[in-house]
Amino acid sequence: MMNTRFTNAKILCTNSDQSFDIIKGELWVENDRIAYIGDGTDAPQKEGMNWDRTIDVNGDLLMPGFKNAHAHTYMTFLRSYADDLPLQEWLYNLCFPMEDKLDTENIRPFEVLGIMEYLTSGITTSFDMCYFPPVYAQVATECGFRAVQVSGVNSFGGLASVVEENYHKVNETSDLTSFMIGFHAEYTTKPELMKEIADLAHKYKTPLYMHNSETRREVDECLERYGKTPTQLTDELDMYAYGGGGYHCIWFDERDFEIFAKRDLTAVTCPASNLKLASGIAPLKEFTDRGINVAIGTDGAASNNALDMFREMYLAATLAKVREEDAACIPAEKILYMATAGGAKAMALPDCDRLAVGKKADLIRIDLTQPNMQPENNLVTNLVYAGGKQNVVMTMVDGKILYENGKFSIGMEPEDVYRDVNAIIRSMKD
Amino acid sequence: MMNTRFTNAKILCTNSDQSFDIIKGELWVENDRIAYIGDGTDAPQKEGMNWDRTIDVNGDLLMPGFKNAHAHTYMTFLRSYADDLPLQEWLYNLCFPMEDKLDTENIRPFEVLGIMEYLTSGITTSFDMCYFPPVYAQVATECGFRAVQVSGVNSFGGLASVVEENYHKVNETSDLTSFMIGFHAEYTTKPELMKEIADLAHKYKTPLYMHNSETRREVDECLERYGKTPTQLTDELDMYAYGGGGYHCIWFDERDFEIFAKRDLTAVTCPASNLKLASGIAPLKEFTDRGINVAIGTDGAASNNALDMFREMYLAATLAKVREEDAACIPAEKILYMATAGGAKAMALPDCDRLAVGKKADLIRIDLTQPNMQPENNLVTNLVYAGGKQNVVMTMVDGKILYENGKFSIGMEPEDVYRDVNAIIRSMKD
Repeated sequence: MMNTRFTNAKILCTNSDQSFDIIKGELWVENDRIAYIGDGTDAPQKEGMNWDRTIDVNGDLLMPGFKNAHAHTYMTFLRSYADDLPLQEWLYNLCFPMEDKLDTENIRPFEVLGIMEYLTSGITTSFDMCYFPPVYAQVATECGFRAVQVSGVNSFGGLASVVEENYHKVNETSDLTSFMIGFHAEYTTKPELMKEIADLAHKYKTPLYMHNSETRREVDECLERYGKTPTQLTDELDMYAYGGGGYHCIWFDERDFEIFAKRDLTAVTCPASNLKLASGIAPLKEFTDRGINVAIGTDGAASNNALDMFREMYLAATLAKVREEDAACIPAEKILYMATAGGAKAMALPDCDRLAVGKKADLIRIDLTQPNMQPENNLVTNLVYAGGKQNVVMTMVDGKILYENGKFSIGMEPEDVYRDVNAIIRSMKD
Repeated sequence: MMNTRFTNAKILCTNSDQSFDIIKGELWVENDRIAYIGDGTDAPQKEGMNWDRTIDVNGDLLMPGFKNAHAHTYMTFLRSYADDLPLQEWLYNLCFPMEDKLDTENIRPFEVLGIMEYLTSGITTSFDMCYFPPVYAQVATECGFRAVQVSGVNSFGGLASVVEENYHKVNETSDLTSFMIGFHAEYTTKPELMKEIADLAHKYKTPLYMHNSETRREVDECLERYGKTPTQLTDELDMYAYGGGGYHCIWFDERDFEIFAKRDLTAVTCPASNLKLASGIAPLKEFTDRGINVAIGTDGAASNNALDMFREMYLAATLAKVREEDAACIPAEKILYMATAGGAKAMALPDCDRLAVGKKADLIRIDLTQPNMQPENNLVTNLVYAGGKQNVVMTMVDGKILYENGKFSIGMEPEDVYRDVNAIIRSMKD
């Protein structure tokens, strides 16, 4: 384990009212947790500490790592493989046949590639719906990356018994990995399997997530099948006894909003993916006005195509303005809260939601000496509206620096990963 | 002047049908122009050349620099100064009073800051509506940056005689700068001044630009005043005898499209600014279906807040999909064309539109060895949907490298620029 002392920092502290303060001073990391934040005068046993590294950040910003609250990390294999197509054609004719060629070995380099991209974007945790969840748990653990997963089972051969098996395997892999019960989506899952999944959520007392109301067609067809929306259907199946939420959540009706508020569920918005697939613009103002937790996700690289939380924050903020025709709709601070603390709540990671003593050291350094961060009118607004991956110069997960000044410390060399992913994708296309 | 030889490159070549090819090999720059593109075997007088630098780009991509086709470069001073506000309140209560404090000296560091940010984003030319156009022409020339400007005169004290004076001053400043006739917008300009501006466009045979149909309110009020849209009004004033176009172009009716097609005008779209100010989503498909030239601009940092052509390309592409509810709407190649050749056409810079022998050496290097550019399924799609500023590792304007690996060669040090802009902004707030 490592003890790291950051000096000469601006430190972004999250308030409970979803606002932020900037503290100037030091941040200490002891092993995997934050041991001190302050100006140094009131620091405990300062002289006795054994520092592995002291990093003068030269006035740069330390902030909580971003929480990518909806991801399919392995999907980097489909980046720029099939673009500019309608969702159903894209999914059924191009993505699914390629996914069938994935196995527990060839999927690994694509997952490493996704984790590398997360680190360049200051993302310290992903909330994944993956093929072979135990494999991604291993890969993330080997890289040192924090990975929460949810089952993406569906009725194309999926079994509740395998979900239960994965639940144990992933939760037991390492302290960096955890697993929740869930399923792919209403439109891919039969009622019998949904009931079995609901039973598992009750048995293990876990939150439950699924893709929910991503397209108008999905909701219309669910209404035809069941006379109720996906939210209402799953609520009646008693799936949210221990919380959870949905991915996308665009085409909601009044009762759907009420259910999310009553059950304290999280709406995970994926604005870039929703734009690219022309799915629509999520009603973020309705969610925030009702006090519903909102988190932000990149979705997979097949439909985004970047894994970039800056892009997502910018889009979440500005699309809400266009949707409501109100430039004052949802201030930047609330968006930054969604991308950090909102995501941690979605993933049931209360120790990763903010920078504070005792919390996990999942944090990033933002270079403020680049032109897009100047002048210093408002640091939070600069982050949300002007920030970009290029400002991320360090990403620390669980007290370990995994990315710094363009270099990775994940136990693998980028050129080896790139060689592998390109070789595998070539063989898959054959 | 410099002779630079790039070896081991992928070179993005623009076809006349708005598609792109990738050539592998070398690109030679002699002084300010491209002297050779090819695999090296057919290169002229290869041994006799005197190379100032030979750069092995290690398989990276060389491509035409982006053309930022609508900008207010000096507006970096308002970045993150006033966000999350309606357009009219933002413009009249916050931006205009601060702009009144600008003078020909204190504006300079903000313009340098904007140019620095352009360079980090691979932008090699801006199409600016500036305060004090001769000052920006000087600043751009000193930095080595290419700057096309247009008059932003309006009836709050503006005079056609000053526009004419600026026309001469800017065009005579250097080979890097040029000036077109134009005015701010219909809603800020009285008919008498518009007529004087039309006369100037005829006198100097220049294209003419203005902010056009940015908000619904602007068009509605123009209809009330004149019984016609801004496009129809200005066309009837015979403003487009030598071409030109409009900035934003969101709220167009059928006749407006017809006028733009008939006159061969350019619609400059600014998707990020339009989102942030909740102005709307431009009808790009209507423009492209009718063969109307489209270019892409960042607008000013006050309303964006970043100056990032990757963000703009992504938004232009994906917002069109959402607007038309069609994920197949406008493929990535057409968007990349808009951001490069489309912009060069808008700015009347035929020598800067593409990489070819004899063209100006306005080009950039894209690092393909970052995770967001892998795997190599489709390079153009990767650029448009996954690319970012962090991939830009070199920006060359007019044969000179102004930005390379995070360092600037513009005759000024970033820390001096940052010190100046923060000092000036503090004194303006007092």
